[in-house]
Amino acid sequence: MSDSRESAIEYVRENYDRFLEDLRELVAIPSVSMQADHNSDMGRAAEWLAARLTALGMEAVQVLPTTRHPVVYGEWLGAGGKAPTILVYGHYDVQPVDPLDLWKSDPYEAAQQGDYLFGRGTSDMKGQVIASIAAIESLAKTSGLPVNVKWLLEGEEEMGSPSMAAFLPEHKDLLGADFCLNPDAGMIAPDQPTITYGLRGLAYFELHVWGPDHDLHSGLYGGTVHNPAQALAELVAGMHDAQGRITLPGFYDPVRPLDPEEHADMAKLPMDEAFYISQTGVPALWGEADYLPIERVGVRPTLEVNGLLSGYTEAGSKTVLPAKAMAKLSCRLVPDQQPEQVHEQMLRYLEEHAPKSVHWELKLLNVGSTAITDRNLPGIKSMETAMETVWGARPLYKREGGSIPVVAMLQEVLGLESVLCGFSLPEDNVHAPNERLHLPTWSKGIDALVHFFANLA
Amino acid sequence: MSDSRESAIEYVRENYDRFLEDLRELVAIPSVSMQADHNSDMGRAAEWLAARLTALGMEAVQVLPTTRHPVVYGEWLGAGGKAPTILVYGHYDVQPVDPLDLWKSDPYEAAQQGDYLFGRGTSDMKGQVIASIAAIESLAKTSGLPVNVKWLLEGEEEMGSPSMAAFLPEHKDLLGADFCLNPDAGMIAPDQPTITYGLRGLAYFELHVWGPDHDLHSGLYGGTVHNPAQALAELVAGMHDAQGRITLPGFYDPVRPLDPEEHADMAKLPMDEAFYISQTGVPALWGEADYLPIERVGVRPTLEVNGLLSGYTEAGSKTVLPAKAMAKLSCRLVPDQQPEQVHEQMLRYLEEHAPKSVHWELKLLNVGSTAITDRNLPGIKSMETAMETVWGARPLYKREGGSIPVVAMLQEVLGLESVLCGFSLPEDNVHAPNERLHLPTWSKGIDALVHFFANLA
Repeated sequence: MSDSRESAIEYVRENYDRFLEDLRELVAIPSVSMQADHNSDMGRAAEWLAARLTALGMEAVQVLPTTRHPVVYGEWLGAGGKAPTILVYGHYDVQPVDPLDLWKSDPYEAAQQGDYLFGRGTSDMKGQVIASIAAIESLAKTSGLPVNVKWLLEGEEEMGSPSMAAFLPEHKDLLGADFCLNPDAGMIAPDQPTITYGLRGLAYFELHVWGPDHDLHSGLYGGTVHNPAQALAELVAGMHDAQGRITLPGFYDPVRPLDPEEHADMAKLPMDEAFYISQTGVPALWGEADYLPIERVGVRPTLEVNGLLSGYTEAGSKTVLPAKAMAKLSCRLVPDQQPEQVHEQMLRYLEEHAPKSVHWELKLLNVGSTAITDRNLPGIKSMETAMETVWGARPLYKREGGSIPVVAMLQEVLGLESVLCGFSLPEDNVHAPNERLHLPTWSKGIDALVHFFANLA
Repeated sequence: MSDSRESAIEYVRENYDRFLEDLRELVAIPSVSMQADHNSDMGRAAEWLAARLTALGMEAVQVLPTTRHPVVYGEWLGAGGKAPTILVYGHYDVQPVDPLDLWKSDPYEAAQQGDYLFGRGTSDMKGQVIASIAAIESLAKTSGLPVNVKWLLEGEEEMGSPSMAAFLPEHKDLLGADFCLNPDAGMIAPDQPTITYGLRGLAYFELHVWGPDHDLHSGLYGGTVHNPAQALAELVAGMHDAQGRITLPGFYDPVRPLDPEEHADMAKLPMDEAFYISQTGVPALWGEADYLPIERVGVRPTLEVNGLLSGYTEAGSKTVLPAKAMAKLSCRLVPDQQPEQVHEQMLRYLEEHAPKSVHWELKLLNVGSTAITDRNLPGIKSMETAMETVWGARPLYKREGGSIPVVAMLQEVLGLESVLCGFSLPEDNVHAPNERLHLPTWSKGIDALVHFFANLA
């Protein structure tokens, strides 16, 4: 290990408690992007980050408006024109915290218990943003930062990054870089560093079904009126066949067959049936029998019910025939599926299957494209070496079940490939109650980022 | 018309505004039996009725406790042992008012608009209780009441009358009568008086389905975990076949075939397809094609979804794979189906169809037996004549889609048949927002009750 790295890693150790305190402060701001009553919190989180970037020595720090939530930008170009420029991506928004009663501690008061820090955003991804800040500060304040950096910290990732489609082309020059570092993907286990080279896309829908123009007495109309909740259940149930395959017309046509080599790689990952059962607590797994569990979540497309609502849902037995019913549905997409195509397929499915006895409306709430990154990118090689240095194990390459729409947009609009990594773990309860961050892994992650930037020099 | 009736009907006219004010006062008490935060309102409503019966000259007025909500009793036995004794039934509880935002006026501030009084319980059945009080007062304060009366006013009808099973046998002697007057059934149109001689039974369930022990990120687990909302939709969808028939094993076995004569009667009712479409606003009717719409709601059993809840249901696109999902389901039953049998059938259906990839639990929330009343009962003949006097049209005989569990219990426990009538209309929005009472029909209903009691002399 060269002296310059040693001094930076030492700085990380000395300032660890302060970095953790930074994370607590950021978690304390309830920046839930999709709930309008948190709009002022979104602004506060952006300002907090802008101040933190300024303190870090970044220049041209700006809170740039979008039609919804602002983007925080900052840069340090002092490494000169010959050094590479890295665009560091992050998002400061978080998912809603409901159901709140299942949290064991306040989601906005980061609480440490043993090796874990509990709180909304600790893992996804305020913790990862602070790790990037910590690594860059540790280099900048010791041996000096060997690369140029730009920051792109958005506030709409949990909504599907709707403003990025306009923001990226508008700020094309400002954001120009050699590649992007995106620590919004995770590791598969604390001792197994992971680099993600593929992401699924997303098409998120809200399906409304209604029949009568008002709620009816189930005893006076049941049997002659198609119950909208039943009609919705029938439509939703029909979206999968008995083998767990999705029945939207043409859904699988653009899906690339799985490469046998990729399948062999996947089979090596320590994520078998027992792993998924222990992670989730389900009585048995489910899904396409021809594919490994890890393939079903990574390389196969899915259709999930994210929410259902109809009629009377409180205590007791109201005998209502509800006027309407709603489902939130989302598809995770894989190359070469296009969200707009899937929207068309969903419309076609509903046109073919919705009975004449009800009305329906499909709303497309958000979309994200699939992305595959070249594994031979220099940035990826730097990350591979950095992870091996810190963990003593070569990183596994993985395609991720989640969707990060900005990755595809950066490819398409700015021509930037992303180095997708991150120091979250599968058991972190992201998007769920009791989200948590494994602090030993986070601490190693900061070290890995130090090495990553140093490797690029 | 005899003089005694004339003076009583005149009294109804003179005191109509006061009777309407009584109804407004009773509607103003939010006596929602199934919501615990209204428990004190239930007590207030019972006390209000006890005071009103006392003012009416009733004796032995009591508010009798049950394990949930009290029963109001009162009697007047001054007509002597040779005159018949009529048990007047009513319920003072109402359905919940949600969704509140669809009400055009405060549900608890009865608001008159044209011929209608809007408010929760105006039609079902505070309006009917006040009509009974008004008719008895009008006779008592003029020519004198020609029959003995007892009152049974309960507070749990909208919960399925759970306390009646214990209350009726405990108070068998107190409640002894020749028959019961139950004005909790309605008329099919303002110019068509109606007597109901059959009621459907009820079995109300809550079905819980869960898989993972916590909410999951849909992108990280979707495809390997059976989404509980999807599993619930599959189970609910499978409860009907493509012909709208219910698939619970053995469900139709005890159902009596429809009598051809009864079918001919049903075909005469002015409740055709156009009627049901205009009442509900649905684009097309639905249900068993072999039966008339009125038969589907009256003589055939049904299975309705009363509520659905799972996952994220607020604005936006949370990509959660929900841990659990819930459906409220209820079956309307016809002779000779038994609620307990249907509970067994539902359990059997779930055992046969629920996949091993989820857990489930079925809760039986409440039950009610079916009932058929002899059309030749003297009380029914008295009501037939009374309605003909007031409307100039013979009442139609009808089997009702709704369930009034107390009717079967009175038959079984006390041997009492019920005269089922009432002055609500199909378009009254009972159990729904903007419940209303058609005041001209209500006023005629008070007159009809005056004639009914006079006919029994």
